[in-house]
Amino acid sequence: MATKNETTIKAEPGTQEIFITREFEAPREIVFKAFTTPELIVQWVGPCNLTMRLDKFEPKAGGSYRYVHIDPAGNEYGFHGVVHEVLAPERIIQTFEFEGLPETGHVVLETARFEALPGDRTRLTMQSVFQSVTDRDGMMQAGMEYGVKDSYNKLDELLATALVN
Amino acid sequence: MATKNETTIKAEPGTQEIFITREFEAPREIVFKAFTTPELIVQWVGPCNLTMRLDKFEPKAGGSYRYVHIDPAGNEYGFHGVVHEVLAPERIIQTFEFEGLPETGHVVLETARFEALPGDRTRLTMQSVFQSVTDRDGMMQAGMEYGVKDSYNKLDELLATALVN
Repeated sequence: MATKNETTIKAEPGTQEIFITREFEAPREIVFKAFTTPELIVQWVGPCNLTMRLDKFEPKAGGSYRYVHIDPAGNEYGFHGVVHEVLAPERIIQTFEFEGLPETGHVVLETARFEALPGDRTRLTMQSVFQSVTDRDGMMQAGMEYGVKDSYNKLDELLATALVN
Repeated sequence: MATKNETTIKAEPGTQEIFITREFEAPREIVFKAFTTPELIVQWVGPCNLTMRLDKFEPKAGGSYRYVHIDPAGNEYGFHGVVHEVLAPERIIQTFEFEGLPETGHVVLETARFEALPGDRTRLTMQSVFQSVTDRDGMMQAGMEYGVKDSYNKLDELLATALVN
């Protein structure tokens, strides 16, 4: 299963978007729950060497969120956004901004789509649309790939436990 | 002035964004006020032959909005979104969705930038980033150009009155 459920990251040259695709060994309702439940999301979002603290989490249309990743030295990396749509169990659309950039106002539109597959499996497609190709390339060069793969590997482990069922 | 302050709409082929640029004969604080005051915004947003009703308008980070354009026959066209950032008097970042599409989930990330020019004038740059080139082209083909130009011409007239000062 570890080789079957690979994380695919597609960023076509010259475009201002990233597509991430990943399959999971769990029904769509369960994967969706892991994205929208505060006690669960802190267990899997982010690189393996960081912990996560939720300051605000309102997974509904008109809601907001803010979370912080904390490294072993205690440094904090903040992220926040607003939620345009939560359509259970198939779609979440929200904005995303990393607070550690030199200036504010660099915002991403994220669309997560959850597709039910045969055998109680789920395919997640995450689209991130940036305000510019430069912003998109900056995100790729910042090593987001490792954080994303770590996150989904942790989610895999979480889905295999009884916690989310 | 009518020829000087033209609305420029740029949609490069193959990209998923639209840039609209327009200058106004008013200071930046006043133009910004016209974008963030409910009594003012209903007077200028939308095509000339439609009226506008605000159902919800919260111009602040974490806020939401919904408005309706109404044609002479009484047909209603709804729009809504969430507000990521309102940085007075220079920037507004929000999502935008037209409720009249065959399916929901086609969302736009809008960034409005207000630049102070010499002579108490203001340059507005509005960027709309779409989830796909197809969505972007659909918006262009729907005739958004006329609505945008009508809106800014109405705003021009409003800025020339004492109402916003």
